[in-house]
Amino acid sequence: MIIAVDAAGGEYAPHEIVKGAIKAAQEYEVEIALVGRKDILYVLAGRHLVKLGITIIDASQAIGAHESPVEAVRSKPDSSIVVGTNLVRDGIASAFVSAGNTGAVLYSALSSLGKIKGIERPAIGSLININTTAPTLLIDAGANTDCRPNYLVQFAQLGTIYSREILDISSPRVGLLNNGEENTRGNRLAQESHLLLKKRRNLNFIGNVEGQDISRGTTDVVVTDGFTGNIVLKTIEGLGDTFQKTMQVGRVLSEAYHLQGRALLLDVGLGSLAKSIDYREYGGACLLGVNGNIIIAHGRSQAKAIKNAIASARQTVERGVCQKIKEENYE
Amino acid sequence: MIIAVDAAGGEYAPHEIVKGAIKAAQEYEVEIALVGRKDILYVLAGRHLVKLGITIIDASQAIGAHESPVEAVRSKPDSSIVVGTNLVRDGIASAFVSAGNTGAVLYSALSSLGKIKGIERPAIGSLININTTAPTLLIDAGANTDCRPNYLVQFAQLGTIYSREILDISSPRVGLLNNGEENTRGNRLAQESHLLLKKRRNLNFIGNVEGQDISRGTTDVVVTDGFTGNIVLKTIEGLGDTFQKTMQVGRVLSEAYHLQGRALLLDVGLGSLAKSIDYREYGGACLLGVNGNIIIAHGRSQAKAIKNAIASARQTVERGVCQKIKEENYE
Repeated sequence: MIIAVDAAGGEYAPHEIVKGAIKAAQEYEVEIALVGRKDILYVLAGRHLVKLGITIIDASQAIGAHESPVEAVRSKPDSSIVVGTNLVRDGIASAFVSAGNTGAVLYSALSSLGKIKGIERPAIGSLININTTAPTLLIDAGANTDCRPNYLVQFAQLGTIYSREILDISSPRVGLLNNGEENTRGNRLAQESHLLLKKRRNLNFIGNVEGQDISRGTTDVVVTDGFTGNIVLKTIEGLGDTFQKTMQVGRVLSEAYHLQGRALLLDVGLGSLAKSIDYREYGGACLLGVNGNIIIAHGRSQAKAIKNAIASARQTVERGVCQKIKEENYE
Repeated sequence: MIIAVDAAGGEYAPHEIVKGAIKAAQEYEVEIALVGRKDILYVLAGRHLVKLGITIIDASQAIGAHESPVEAVRSKPDSSIVVGTNLVRDGIASAFVSAGNTGAVLYSALSSLGKIKGIERPAIGSLININTTAPTLLIDAGANTDCRPNYLVQFAQLGTIYSREILDISSPRVGLLNNGEENTRGNRLAQESHLLLKKRRNLNFIGNVEGQDISRGTTDVVVTDGFTGNIVLKTIEGLGDTFQKTMQVGRVLSEAYHLQGRALLLDVGLGSLAKSIDYREYGGACLLGVNGNIIIAHGRSQAKAIKNAIASARQTVERGVCQKIKEENYE
């Protein structure tokens, strides 16, 4: 299994990406193909290449975080994102991991790999780990800003497959993110989606869920449109950042006052909560519904997050998520 | 100034509501009118009535949290919510505070008080205190699930007035909640709202903001539709709950191990963060755009939150927020 990794995407590229890829190669016994500028990557990863089975695939161009996705993908055929998705299309790599411009990864995946038959809109499934004993898959976490009710039904199906295959939940509970629990709640999209979801027999639809359910572990799959999903994800991220900063203040204070036991206090409970809402720990999000395995890592990913995203990619390949999605009935 | 308080609304009614009202009467020198069942309220508040200037207004009916707002308001003319809003309409009370069924409070306020001239849709403005040095007003936090672009422009105007009058910010920065910072981002509603917001001269519109900006203090007013706003608010609340629980584990552990300095560690930084995302500390949200001062408290409000909501009501009256909204140009 070869996993292609975008070495030119994300805020900490290429150094942290290469570091994360090397760690993953050491820990998981996967072959990594680093995609980016050959000259730079040889310098950064050179001595690990043979020993760890890391290869380098040259991609002379890079797409910036703020470039317009469609234009960038079209005008930069030799960018790491386009080259990486093409490696998956051509069967050279089993998966592609990128912390680069999410819109560009989406567009490149759509045009290079195409959609799985029956899927109207591929969606991003993002695992939220606040409740570490019962993580929640948020889908769509940002691929589709304007949605129709039937898209949301498909998101529920995609999320169910992912949750079943990756988290080993035999019948994942699906909740529709809404502004109230009552069946009649919601904007037009949510109301119509609710009716459609209720009709689907192959879903374990538990009804409407609210924002607080994301951290409560009451639902395995939280379905929403990509606009709301993205905002929710980033709201959680913002709180995670605030939390981290506050923890640091606590640490500095406790050191200044030579307080005992601080390690215990910080590490048990609080530490694990901080970790679980820290994007550096995320395993990346999965683009579900395209013909291939695409893992979208956070733009601020450092080595650890990249390593986790590679682990996530490996698992997605091993469990055959893409094949399972193909076997589902979307009519 | 008389502030009417719904003694029959919310999970902890009537006990915690009465307790909160008594505390507010003691601390803020406001006259309180408790609205609810006379017989019960006399028992609960009896000995404070004369000393603190608390009056009791009988309302024999109560609207439950899960009742359909329109039906409930229509069929229960003697409910605490209807009686409370009518007290404001009739000029007997300067404001009404309720932790009851939000939909019912909205509908009752709309039908009893009416909208301020020029306002298409009154909205809920909710102060989010994660960044305690720079709280953010989220508007609409849940009144309007389906919105048009011009509603969002009015929300921005209402939020600006509230932020200016209550938080003393001379030119509040207004951000449009979106799934990316770039001007072209968003669903159709956000894209069209962005164009309209940019044109308005009397707004300090800083462009699109993302979920993480809510806790970063980069924006004074975050504008969004009520569907997204409600979900964001509840997501934050859910994290707040998780945080509280984790803090408790930390406390128990530190006590078990007799750790020194735990008070300092917990109270500085972490404690204040926990407090700021704890709904029990919220001062309630304000319904902006109706002809009167309506404060919506959290359904799980206990005494402290009710006390804070009353403080918030008093300030809204004193600063003449309603009058300022009437003086604005909405064309």
